[in-house]
Parts: sequence; structure tokens; C-alpha cells
Amino acid sequence: MPQLRQDRTTKEWVIIAAERAKRPGHFRKTKPRDPKPAYKEDCPFCPGNESLTPAETMAYRDAGEPNGTGWRLRVVPNKFPALVPNGSLKRKEEFGFFRMMDGVGIHEVVIGSPIHNQLFHLQEDGRAEEVLLAYRERYLALSQDERIKLVIIFKNHGEGAGTSLDHTHSQIVATTVVPSNIRKKLEEAAHYYDDHGDCVYCDLIREEQRDGRRIVMETDQFIVLHPFASRFPFETWILPKTHHASFGRILTGDIKAFARVLKATLLKIHAKLNDPDYNYVIHTSPVKDEGEDYYHWHLQIIPRLTTPAGFEMGSGIYINVAFPEDTAAFLREN
Amino acid sequence: MPQLRQDRTTKEWVIIAAERAKRPGHFRKTKPRDPKPAYKEDCPFCPGNESLTPAETMAYRDAGEPNGTGWRLRVVPNKFPALVPNGSLKRKEEFGFFRMMDGVGIHEVVIGSPIHNQLFHLQEDGRAEEVLLAYRERYLALSQDERIKLVIIFKNHGEGAGTSLDHTHSQIVATTVVPSNIRKKLEEAAHYYDDHGDCVYCDLIREEQRDGRRIVMETDQFIVLHPFASRFPFETWILPKTHHASFGRILTGDIKAFARVLKATLLKIHAKLNDPDYNYVIHTSPVKDEGEDYYHWHLQIIPRLTTPAGFEMGSGIYINVAFPEDTAAFLREN
Repeated sequence: MPQLRQDRTTKEWVIIAAERAKRPGHFRKTKPRDPKPAYKEDCPFCPGNESLTPAETMAYRDAGEPNGTGWRLRVVPNKFPALVPNGSLKRKEEFGFFRMMDGVGIHEVVIGSPIHNQLFHLQEDGRAEEVLLAYRERYLALSQDERIKLVIIFKNHGEGAGTSLDHTHSQIVATTVVPSNIRKKLEEAAHYYDDHGDCVYCDLIREEQRDGRRIVMETDQFIVLHPFASRFPFETWILPKTHHASFGRILTGDIKAFARVLKATLLKIHAKLNDPDYNYVIHTSPVKDEGEDYYHWHLQIIPRLTTPAGFEMGSGIYINVAFPEDTAAFLREN
Repeated sequence: MPQLRQDRTTKEWVIIAAERAKRPGHFRKTKPRDPKPAYKEDCPFCPGNESLTPAETMAYRDAGEPNGTGWRLRVVPNKFPALVPNGSLKRKEEFGFFRMMDGVGIHEVVIGSPIHNQLFHLQEDGRAEEVLLAYRERYLALSQDERIKLVIIFKNHGEGAGTSLDHTHSQIVATTVVPSNIRKKLEEAAHYYDDHGDCVYCDLIREEQRDGRRIVMETDQFIVLHPFASRFPFETWILPKTHHASFGRILTGDIKAFARVLKATLLKIHAKLNDPDYNYVIHTSPVKDEGEDYYHWHLQIIPRLTTPAGFEMGSGIYINVAFPEDTAAFLREN
């Protein structure tokens, strides 16, 4: 019997399609990824090619000068940005109907390592921590821009996840609007708080702990789980156990713990599914509307194992062909 | 300068990424599709193999008996349904938190032609009309089931659009819940009606006609356009010019006109983009909540030319790398 499950944080339904359900091992990638070199002469993100990117916004270095070699991590403006820093924030209407504004915002690239083929989860703890420290650093800097409403931090790993550049990197986009999707997530969290006097994500953590079947791993500070109403096979959420609405407020000690748990989670996904394409995104509250009582930041990892089709586009209901109870158990195994 | 554009029907923002924008011809598929035969011995949808599908729900035939050969079109229950006809409609809660219900609903396949490789837009008008007549027939029958809340009619063309079966077909899923996405579309349409006393889709048609740049084609009964806030390159909407909330109420004369305009549109996309993968979906109001004054049924075609990535997943804002003004002009050219 297929199940309709409701995500309590969004009120969205998903279908867990029992009649089509696959064993977790089915999703293991069979075609190996083409091997990538550690250094690529013409890669704009490889050391020595710093002049091929816009001037860096920040860097962590062992030696050298800004925009020279010697860095461990660089943050640079995206050369082909989705949004640009200067323009008007005024809404315009054409014919009183079509609403638009200049595409104002900030679009940055975090080059997490000088090594072309370095995977986040295969590097030392210290390097992984620095990536997350850079995220926080840029989050805090971008939030000070009074035009910025939301900072979205994400990674696209592999072609099937929409990346176009080989060299390991992640991206930060700061927007001047609050997307309606995010507004809806906040509203649902606020409704839940009004009804229950508790954060829906804190309750979700407590209930997932009580159930136990969908937990992938747990540390003192974080919990990793496949949510009850997973939209995708192996959809994975990492939530801090301590309630905070905004990623920007994470403390350095928690960054260390976050780096370790993110590494461990991605490593499990890599090992069990043979390095699949994936996206991860940090979901955090809008900069000027933090909803501290009711929102709770978290990271979502979406391995790209299936293709959403017409039904998903028409209904917004995802058909998931795996049970999160099964996929979580599969990742827990050694 | 990139643009943020708002879809007035959903309030969702899209980014038209001018710095990344591609000329419309860029999206033309270069790798030809593997040729498919007109008949395949082991295809469950090919004539002679009727016993490989569940017993047919309806058919249009030149000869023969139900579940035998001689049909021009068959509708059969999906052998691996996402939702099943029998089960409880009661919501259940586990631990008072996790909400679920049995996956009840109807999932059918419309086998639009006995010819294995027949494309919708390359068949005679009469055959195309029959596909749409079957949609209406099943829509009306399914709506009479008092458990059914929404009927979603869609097609997945090509692997990149999520299809797994070669033989040309489309699908109908009838759900026992109204998805939150659809609820939101209805709410936005109702808000617009409250504010303006008009249907937002009727106004959209009028304003698109006034502007003209995004119109692909127009007939007496239908308009085909690339919406102002297109989420995807070549996203195409076909709207009836006469206001109706529900596809189920379409008259036979309008079905004929709809078949011709859908054929002509898909043919243009096929010719100009070299037969790309695509989905189409009929957006129609919920069966028991038609919103006759303010909702307006339409069909959306989404060619699968780009890959949504982490930013889209995190924000719900789509980055479109083509201007709908350019893609509509490109399709208008002969």
C-alpha cells in the first residue's frame, strides 16, 4: 500500500510509492565518475590562475598576497552572476501587470580547496571546518548589507546536480527578496509555534529520536536523519540539536562539530552510493526576519538519483520510490 | 542586468540571468534520439500484448473486443501505480506528530496510439483529438468518485523527462488530497480576484496580447505564450481564451481546437529544438472546489533543457538562462 505522508514543516504531501519501491542498494551508481586530475592547467579555480576570477573577497592563506597563490580557500565573486551588486530596488510594473525589479544581489563562489579534485568529505577536519567558517564569515558580512533579505549557501556536486565547473566549490547567493517558498516555510513554522508553543523542528528531532528508524547518525550537537516525508530517495537533513533560527549565529565550536558531521554524512553517501551527484543547501531564516522562536536552521542533502516528472511539476507532490526507514538503515550499516 | 520577475499567478520570483543568457538556438539538442521502431514485440503497450496490462478502463476501437487488438487508443490502470484505489481515507498520526494516510487514488495510463513510436504532434488531427477526448472522459468519470479531490493529466516525453516506457503514452493521477502547491495557486487567484474583480489568467492573456512579444501563436480559441516570469527556457503555456476553471468542462468543439493548437505547439518545439525531452501538465481546479470565478485551466509544457540545482532547491527561485521574449520570437520564426 503506497503512503501519503505530510511534511509537518511545509504541509506538503509526498507519496511513498510502495509498489515501485526499490531496495536502497538499487540506487548505487554503477557507472564510475570520470577520473579528475588534482591540478588542471586551464581551470580558473586552480592555483596560478587567480587572475582568471574576479578579485577575491576573502581567502585563508599559508603564504602570498591577495589574488596570488598560497591560499587554502578563496571566496570570489561569480564571474557569471545570477544577481549583480548594483541596480535599483524599486519594483517596476509594465502595463500595471508584469512585475519586475533589477536582479540585484550578491553571487559568490567558495573555492574550498586549491586541489582541483578535492572532495569535501575526503579532506582533513581542519580544511572542512574552514569551508564552513568561510560560509559563516560571508553570511555575516552579506547580512550587513541592508538590501539583503536572504543568504542561500549551497553546493552542486556533479553534472546531474547542475554544476558546470569541475573544481570543487560551493556558492553563496544573497537576495533582495524573500522567496515565496521560504516565506511559506516560515509561516508554517510560526503556525506550529502558535498551536504548540514549540519549534516544529525541535519537535521533529524529538519525535525522530523517539522513533529511531530514520536516524542516520547522531552526535552531541547534531542529528542526521531521513525525514518521515522524504521527497527523494536518500534525502538527508542535518539539524543542530540546539535551537537557532539563523546559521549566522553558529559558534566556532559548533562549526567544528558541524564540519565533522557533514563530512561523515557525505562520506557515508559517497561510500554506499558510489559518489552520486548531489546538492546540499543550508536552510536558514531571512536576515531581517529571523523568527528566532520558531525557525530552526538546517542543511538538506539531496542526492540526484531520480528524475522528477510531470506529476511532480503539476502537483508539487513528489513520488518517492524508497522508504526513508530503509535508506537510513542502509546508511547506518557499515 | 539580470531581472527578477514575479509570476502574478503564484507570486513566485524568477531570475532571468542576463549574464548567463543563451541565444535560443543554443538549446537545440545536438545528439539525435535513438531511433525507435513502430512496433516492439515485448512492449506491453503494443497491439497483441493487451494481456500484459491490467484490463482496460476504456478504449476507442475500429474492431475487436475489449482487451483484444483493433484499438486506436486504450486507457488502462497503471501496473505500478503511485496510488491505489482501495484503502482508508482516515489520517493517522504516529507519536502525535507524523501525519500519513493510505496512498489512495487512481493512476491510469493513456496509450494514445497502437504505434510504438507515434509522436502526439505527428499524428492526424483526429487521433490527437481522441487523446484529449479520452482525457476529458476519464476526468469526468474520476471526478464522480466522491473521494477524488484533484485530477492531474500529464505526459513525460523522453528519459530526461522521467519516462521509463518507450511507447508513447500519457498518465492520469487522481488524488484524495489537494496538494499545497495547488492550494496556493488557487489562493493567489482568489486574492487577485478579490483585488481586481477579474481572473488573473484572463488579465494575463489580455496583457500578453497587448505586449505581444511573448506570444508564440494564437487561434480563435487558444493562446500560446512564454510567460513573462518563465522558470525554464521555452516554458510554454497554452490557455483557452474563454474563461473556465476546470478542464472537465471543455466542449467537444474546443477539444478539436485544443488538439490542433497542442499539435502545432509541440511540432514547433520539436522542429526548432530537435525533439527535446519535455513534460506537459494540464493545470485545472480541484474537482470539488472549482473556483469558477477566479481559476482558469491551462496546459504547461516544460522542455527539459537545463538542470535545476541547489539554488532552486534552497530558494524555490528558478534561474532562467533565456529571455521568454527571445524564445517566443524564435518559435514564431518559420
